[in-house]
Amino acid sequence: MLNEGQRATVLGIVGNSAAGKTTLAQGLADIIGRERCALICADDYHRFSRLERLAQGLSPADPRNNHLDILEQHLWTLRTGKPILKPVYDHATGLLTRPEYVEPKPYVIVEGLLCYNTRGLRDCFDVKLYLEPDERLRERWKLERDVLARGYALEEARKLLARSKRDGIGFILPQRLFADIVISFLHEHPEQPEADSELSVRHILRPTLPHPDITPLLEPNVRNGLSLELSRDHDGKPVDLLEIEGHIGPRDARRLEDLLWLLLPETSAVRANFGEISAGRKAKLLSHPLALSELLIAYHLEMAAEEMRHAGSAGK
Amino acid sequence: MLNEGQRATVLGIVGNSAAGKTTLAQGLADIIGRERCALICADDYHRFSRLERLAQGLSPADPRNNHLDILEQHLWTLRTGKPILKPVYDHATGLLTRPEYVEPKPYVIVEGLLCYNTRGLRDCFDVKLYLEPDERLRERWKLERDVLARGYALEEARKLLARSKRDGIGFILPQRLFADIVISFLHEHPEQPEADSELSVRHILRPTLPHPDITPLLEPNVRNGLSLELSRDHDGKPVDLLEIEGHIGPRDARRLEDLLWLLLPETSAVRANFGEISAGRKAKLLSHPLALSELLIAYHLEMAAEEMRHAGSAGK
Repeated sequence: MLNEGQRATVLGIVGNSAAGKTTLAQGLADIIGRERCALICADDYHRFSRLERLAQGLSPADPRNNHLDILEQHLWTLRTGKPILKPVYDHATGLLTRPEYVEPKPYVIVEGLLCYNTRGLRDCFDVKLYLEPDERLRERWKLERDVLARGYALEEARKLLARSKRDGIGFILPQRLFADIVISFLHEHPEQPEADSELSVRHILRPTLPHPDITPLLEPNVRNGLSLELSRDHDGKPVDLLEIEGHIGPRDARRLEDLLWLLLPETSAVRANFGEISAGRKAKLLSHPLALSELLIAYHLEMAAEEMRHAGSAGK
Repeated sequence: MLNEGQRATVLGIVGNSAAGKTTLAQGLADIIGRERCALICADDYHRFSRLERLAQGLSPADPRNNHLDILEQHLWTLRTGKPILKPVYDHATGLLTRPEYVEPKPYVIVEGLLCYNTRGLRDCFDVKLYLEPDERLRERWKLERDVLARGYALEEARKLLARSKRDGIGFILPQRLFADIVISFLHEHPEQPEADSELSVRHILRPTLPHPDITPLLEPNVRNGLSLELSRDHDGKPVDLLEIEGHIGPRDARRLEDLLWLLLPETSAVRANFGEISAGRKAKLLSHPLALSELLIAYHLEMAAEEMRHAGSAGK
C-alpha cells in the first residue's frame, strides 16, 4: 500500500473523553478508504492496567499513565512507512493484552487524550485537530456511552464524567493551543436541544494550515447556513471562524462540497467513498455539518499528502 | 545510563535450542554489570501463540512465526539509545502477553534463534556470536532443560529434540556464516563425558573483528591448555582456531586473563565484576574455558564501545 521510502500522512484527533474522537476517526477512515488508513487509538499506550492505575491514584489521562515516548516512536515509525507492534489496552477488562501488528498505510489517523502533550509527539502530525463540543453535549454523549455501551451504572458514570471534567482542565485543554483546527459541535438553540443530526459545527481555523478559500460561497447579509468571519479565540488570538449551521440546506451544502472537490487535486477515490457514504447516511439522517467537516479534514489530508509527493519528486 | 544521542553496543548470541544462549547472556550481563545491560530474548518476538502456531504447522524457529521486522526495528531503537515496548512470549503458557518497557542501556545483549536471518537484523550488531556446542552435549542440555526446567515428559522432550535438529539445519545453521566468532563447548574425551565444569571451548575467529593478540601466551610445543592455529572452517574458509582446554591450569588461565586486562582500555567496573563472579564461581566449580570465553567477548564489547566513543568525539 505504501511504497518503500514513501511517507504517510498523519492526522491527530485530540479531545476529552466522549468528545467524538472515535466517531470522527471512523468517518474519516470511511471517506479516505479503510484500506488506505491505519487507525490508532492512543488509549492503547496506557502504562498501567486499571487496577495498577487505581492503586496509584492516577487518572487514565495523566501523562504518567501513558507511554508517550513509545507512542511518539510508533507514530514516527508509521509515518516513515514502517510497521509497528502496537500495545493493546482492553477497555472491557482494564488489562493490557497481546500487542497487534499494524501495517504501514498511506494515512494514519491517531485519536487520543494526549497526542499533543510533547513537542516530539506534535511533530509527528501533518494535521492536528482538537475536538471541543459544547460541554452539555459532551456530558450527554459521555453518560450515554458509559452507561449504554460500556455498561456502567448511572452513579458510576456520573463519577467518570466528573473525573473527565477535571482531566479536561488539567490534561486535555492545555493541548488545544497546538491544534490547526478546533472543531466544536453545538446546539443552535441550547434551550431546545436538537437531535445530533441537527447540530451545527464551528471550526476555529488557525493560520498553521493552508485553509481552502471558501469566500466564493459566502453571500454578505444572506444567511445560507455558512459563514466565515474574523474573530478572536478564547485566548485573544486572531482566528477565522467557519460555521456550518445545522439547518444548512442541501443546495448550500452541495455548493461547499463542489468547491472542495474543485480544490482537491486527486480525489476520485475519496469522492466515490464520500458519495457512497453520504447516500448511506442520508437514510440515517446524519448531518451536513458533520459530513462537510469530514470533507474539509479530508481536504487537508489530501493537500498534505500531495505536498509530500511533490517534495518527494523534487528530492529525486 | 545512556546519554542523549549516545549509541549502545549490541551483542548477538545465536544458536539452536539449548545451545547455551541464555547461560552465556546472563554470564556476560553479570560481567558487564546488570545495570548497564538490556537483555533481549528474541523468542518474545514470536508472531503466534503456541496453539495458533501448531494449527499452522509452523516450528517456533520458522521465520514466518517471528516478527523479525519488529525485532530489527526494536534493536535499532535500543542501539540509538531509545526505549522500546518489547512484546512478551510466555514459554510456560505459550501465550503472548502484556509487553514490557525496556529502558535504553549502554549494552544490549540479544539472544535468539534467528537474529542474523536478514541483512537488516545483522546490521544491528556490533559483535555477532554463534553457539555451536558439540551436538551430544546440546542433546543432553536440551533434554535436561525441557524435562527438569520446563516440565515436559521425556517422550515429549525427545520429540522437541528431534524438531530442534530439523530446525537447526533448516533455520539456525544458515546464520553461522555471519558470526564473528563461532563458539563450541565440547568434551575433550567424548568417550568419557566430563562434567560441564571440565568442558573445553573452541573459538572460530573470523577476520571480521579485531581479535586480541594472544601470541605472547603461546609456547610452541608446550601444552599449556591454550592454543591458536590457522585452520579451515567446515566451509573451507580460513579462520583462526582458539582453543582453551578444560584442564587449563589456574596459572595459564590467569595469564590470559591478565593479558586481556592489559589490552582492555577502560575496565575497572568489568574487572571488579569479573573478579567477584570468578570467586563465586570457583565455589561452584565453573570452568576456566567458560569464564575466559566471557572475558574475550567482554573484550570485544568494550572495544566496540570504545571505538564508538572515539567516533563520537571525532564527530563533534
